[in-house]
Amino acid sequence: MSFDIIRAARAILHVTDLNQSRDFYVNALGFIETEADDAHIYLRGLEEHTHHSLVLKKADEAAVEAISYKVRNEEDLEELAALFTRDGSKVKWLEAGSQTAVGRAFRVQDVSGMPVEFFVKMDGAERFLQRYDMYRGARVQRIDHFNCMVSDVEKAYEFYTKKLGFACSEYTAGAEEKIWAAWLHRKPTVHDVAFMNGKGPRLHHIGFWLSDCMSIIHTCDVLASIGYGAHIERGPGRHGLSNAFFLYLRDPDGHRIELYTGDYLTSDPDFKPIRWDINDSRRQTFWGHAAPDCWFEEASTVLDVHDGQKQELKEAVLAQQKPTFIT
Amino acid sequence: MSFDIIRAARAILHVTDLNQSRDFYVNALGFIETEADDAHIYLRGLEEHTHHSLVLKKADEAAVEAISYKVRNEEDLEELAALFTRDGSKVKWLEAGSQTAVGRAFRVQDVSGMPVEFFVKMDGAERFLQRYDMYRGARVQRIDHFNCMVSDVEKAYEFYTKKLGFACSEYTAGAEEKIWAAWLHRKPTVHDVAFMNGKGPRLHHIGFWLSDCMSIIHTCDVLASIGYGAHIERGPGRHGLSNAFFLYLRDPDGHRIELYTGDYLTSDPDFKPIRWDINDSRRQTFWGHAAPDCWFEEASTVLDVHDGQKQELKEAVLAQQKPTFIT
Amino acid sequence: MSFDIIRAARAILHVTDLNQSRDFYVNALGFIETEADDAHIYLRGLEEHTHHSLVLKKADEAAVEAISYKVRNEEDLEELAALFTRDGSKVKWLEAGSQTAVGRAFRVQDVSGMPVEFFVKMDGAERFLQRYDMYRGARVQRIDHFNCMVSDVEKAYEFYTKKLGFACSEYTAGAEEKIWAAWLHRKPTVHDVAFMNGKGPRLHHIGFWLSDCMSIIHTCDVLASIGYGAHIERGPGRHGLSNAFFLYLRDPDGHRIELYTGDYLTSDPDFKPIRWDINDSRRQTFWGHAAPDCWFEEASTVLDVHDGQKQELKEAVLAQQKPTFIT
Amino acid sequence: MSFDIIRAARAILHVTDLNQSRDFYVNALGFIETEADDAHIYLRGLEEHTHHSLVLKKADEAAVEAISYKVRNEEDLEELAALFTRDGSKVKWLEAGSQTAVGRAFRVQDVSGMPVEFFVKMDGAERFLQRYDMYRGARVQRIDHFNCMVSDVEKAYEFYTKKLGFACSEYTAGAEEKIWAAWLHRKPTVHDVAFMNGKGPRLHHIGFWLSDCMSIIHTCDVLASIGYGAHIERGPGRHGLSNAFFLYLRDPDGHRIELYTGDYLTSDPDFKPIRWDINDSRRQTFWGHAAPDCWFEEASTVLDVHDGQKQELKEAVLAQQKPTFIT
Repeated sequence: MSFDIIRAARAILHVTDLNQSRDFYVNALGFIETEADDAHIYLRGLEEHTHHSLVLKKADEAAVEAISYKVRNEEDLEELAALFTRDGSKVKWLEAGSQTAVGRAFRVQDVSGMPVEFFVKMDGAERFLQRYDMYRGARVQRIDHFNCMVSDVEKAYEFYTKKLGFACSEYTAGAEEKIWAAWLHRKPTVHDVAFMNGKGPRLHHIGFWLSDCMSIIHTCDVLASIGYGAHIERGPGRHGLSNAFFLYLRDPDGHRIELYTGDYLTSDPDFKPIRWDINDSRRQTFWGHAAPDCWFEEASTVLDVHDGQKQELKEAVLAQQKPTFIT
Repeated sequence: MSFDIIRAARAILHVTDLNQSRDFYVNALGFIETEADDAHIYLRGLEEHTHHSLVLKKADEAAVEAISYKVRNEEDLEELAALFTRDGSKVKWLEAGSQTAVGRAFRVQDVSGMPVEFFVKMDGAERFLQRYDMYRGARVQRIDHFNCMVSDVEKAYEFYTKKLGFACSEYTAGAEEKIWAAWLHRKPTVHDVAFMNGKGPRLHHIGFWLSDCMSIIHTCDVLASIGYGAHIERGPGRHGLSNAFFLYLRDPDGHRIELYTGDYLTSDPDFKPIRWDINDSRRQTFWGHAAPDCWFEEASTVLDVHDGQKQELKEAVLAQQKPTFIT
Repeated sequence: MSFDIIRAARAILHVTDLNQSRDFYVNALGFIETEADDAHIYLRGLEEHTHHSLVLKKADEAAVEAISYKVRNEEDLEELAALFTRDGSKVKWLEAGSQTAVGRAFRVQDVSGMPVEFFVKMDGAERFLQRYDMYRGARVQRIDHFNCMVSDVEKAYEFYTKKLGFACSEYTAGAEEKIWAAWLHRKPTVHDVAFMNGKGPRLHHIGFWLSDCMSIIHTCDVLASIGYGAHIERGPGRHGLSNAFFLYLRDPDGHRIELYTGDYLTSDPDFKPIRWDINDSRRQTFWGHAAPDCWFEEASTVLDVHDGQKQELKEAVLAQQKPTFIT
Repeated sequence: MSFDIIRAARAILHVTDLNQSRDFYVNALGFIETEADDAHIYLRGLEEHTHHSLVLKKADEAAVEAISYKVRNEEDLEELAALFTRDGSKVKWLEAGSQTAVGRAFRVQDVSGMPVEFFVKMDGAERFLQRYDMYRGARVQRIDHFNCMVSDVEKAYEFYTKKLGFACSEYTAGAEEKIWAAWLHRKPTVHDVAFMNGKGPRLHHIGFWLSDCMSIIHTCDVLASIGYGAHIERGPGRHGLSNAFFLYLRDPDGHRIELYTGDYLTSDPDFKPIRWDINDSRRQTFWGHAAPDCWFEEASTVLDVHDGQKQELKEAVLAQQKPTFIT
């Protein structure tokens, strides 16, 4: 392939109450609100120099409209669209001007049924990295990755690594070396997207990157102070896989957000992917803590990019969804 | 009263395997080993200028021999012994020289049956507060408090506040304002000793003070790195009560250690004790996380100061031991 | 003595522009503003359960009206006043109601000429320790200590330790073992007050306690973000003496504020004061960094408690004010 | 260009006493020693999965033998060598096996006279990222960048951006928009190499990346504890430029090491380089602290890749080396 997908760039979430969402994302978590209207809120992190990395869109039901990647240039975008078309997928073009702050883009249902968008240009915005007086809550720096629950991880893995040029940093395998989950990247961090075995397609979570662990501890304290304690679903803890220090939150509509810091550089093309056994208790939480059932079972509904209907769910190909640890 | 109890000063724990204990306390947690012989290990924290705050004593069974307080001077010690004697308790004197590094002391079973020791003098030791090159693991600074599970908290509360001069910083109360747990101090922090309602007398945990939250996160990482992940029982988290950031560990014999930081100054005599409702989910973990059952049910056996036999357990006076949260 | 001075409790500073001061203390440093009128702003830290620990008072010239200690009870206050009177000092009583939120108090010029106040009662205020959503800037927790530049440190040392019952935690001595500076405490931390050799009486700084080092780093970042970078005078750094991690700021009127964390417990009556040699380069900044000249030379003017006039300055008894390090 | 330089990968420093260097890098700073012989020590950081990122080589005089970049594959290496040859530079090939742990490589004097090496392969080594029990001192994670003092920054800038494919993240410009310094990257961080105006070619420093600010504070404490306080040259502080939290150290031979954390992702090809004015006092230290003269004036001698002789120094093209701040 000669195109260049740069990184995970934004997500578009349907939410049922914009004010409630604003209170959670802006007041509690400290996202910067770039712009808003009656139907949308556009949010960005402190180091982001672009208009937004998260769009909250007013809707009757919570869902994921699209997860979106930035592509190097217009030629790459064309080539990428051609690839999907050749592959039998129907591409939907969104011309420049049709979406706030985003240039020409296309959307497509990927091999797992996830609604994926690709674009080249986004309007700029003032970067507030050095406006420390504006640091609040989680001090979110930037979007980092998407985690998708899909029924056939190996199929997604093959498509993203062989056709889209993603590299694998770490993966989980069980009996017969079937891949249970895979962490794939374009930017040289642990991932831009991960695929986990489960009933899908669904979006498990969006990961936002923070600069330090104490911002995660402070987030817990702030959330508890203002009555959002019940929105903490899992953590804080250290992932064995990725080495990241993490916190999982559920937003007012149940969308899962991961606050994430502490992974590592994966720039070397000869970096050998790290294998974790499905039954290694340190894989999920390095310290051995179990994740709650809801973390394994619940995820956000995703929509069809053409008709906006909910994607039908398929059962997972691999039986074992939740590790049983032998301690 | 005219005597002056200074602070919680040391604990004497029976352990079944000194090498195994040394590996946990010294290699993993970073305690400083002042001295050891075939039957004892004497440990101290980085800021401690005295010989030890924890004695591990080789024994056939794990148990607590004594928890110990430092008293201002010899006259105070006499007066304190007289108070216990008047109160009908049999005091056991330990002359200077009979215990390593500790001057004249006495032991007594307190009103709850806990084996308590009082002494004035302890040999000094080099303080390693500014030997940052020796900081390892949890970077334990000093002993902070004892937490005792007793069958009648109000009885303990009355004795410690009215006869021994402890002040109450915070307490938990339920229906009819019965005290379910109380945090009592002599040094102006949240506590030197806490009493919790439960089958007792038993020692629930010993709290050691650290200077910052990240030392607790690093402790989890270190423990997991060297195979002690299963010794993490609860946390890390923030207590609502005391505001402390905490981690509960179980040592190789099951004794519970709390790593603790982030409480506040309680020097003002007119500080009004803070009341927490037994059903406030933020009391135990400010963020709302539940404690595991074992944290409520398991605690260390304590011994009789005269015959060394296990203290008989009494059922708790108050029925409700474990809060049920309404979320 | 039978009276009990509890701790350093508040300072009253004259400032020339209340709005400018508010911007610095409240907006930049994150102090909580309890109350204000045309002539005063009353500030407190996040863990303080009392009305204020800092009073900013509108005046034509910057100065220190008083530094103030909390005393256990009214009898102690009487006894303390009697001691000063016996000692030849003229005491000025301020009846309850004459000062906002403070009960009956007296002021006196101490042995060094510092304007000192003693009181028992202060109105309460909501403690915001667990209102993490309100944490801003330096996240100031509480007042910690006063540092006074006086012409004769030994005289102050003698009076405070022998007559007022302060204990010495650390001190600096030079040739002939003359005390060049001394750190004295009532609450069991390193100090409530320190005396340094210099032209005096002047107030060198007021120390406020923070819970962690990163709050100091964040303070620097916030100050720089909003144009207060030039108000950072010294640090961040680690003091050898006290082990505290520190930052010195100059407020808009030049009053010096220390942000301070990381000292240790000094509860033991047999704690042996730590001696530092005047020429030990690690004493001031453990890492060896030199303090700027202004830090040695500049300090706040103090007023006479009776006539409100500026106290006349005396030259220091000891010649050497600024250490010359041999590296 | 069609070749792909991956990242700054290693440096080879001549040092005069290997044991002295080991004490500094391994015992004090916590580098992992992969391998050593009578003439070399090979060091790596905690997250590095390759044999080393720093070679210390015994020599009579301190100097820089080479700074080295990893290249994607052998074809790229050939093409890169051809480019230098076409450009009139004499390339020196080092066949696989001639250097410990490194595959086929070539060295060349770059446009500024810096001794630069390019290679594709390095032997692997166990990654200790999750061996938290081995974390010591600075907890160095990985090599990050080189900073070169050169006589003509614009010439270096042109060559690295136009011929080698580096992108500029930030730069300093003065009167007439002459570039005084430039930060250039291949991996998407702020830089792999920076060029600063000065007498050159010399190596100003090697930057190593840490995961958090507190590791830098702890490094200062550890260095001071064991007598290396005088090796702290500048910081800790925050750079305005790059936003990094930094500490500059001088090793026993005077080579300058930067401990560095807190920069940001620069993956977007349309990221607009950030311009800093040469006289902006926040550029160097965001908080306004001045750097010491030695930081501007001293740097490591670099050698000729062919004859091993010291490179002759040229005076800087731009007159102004050290900013004069107008505060």
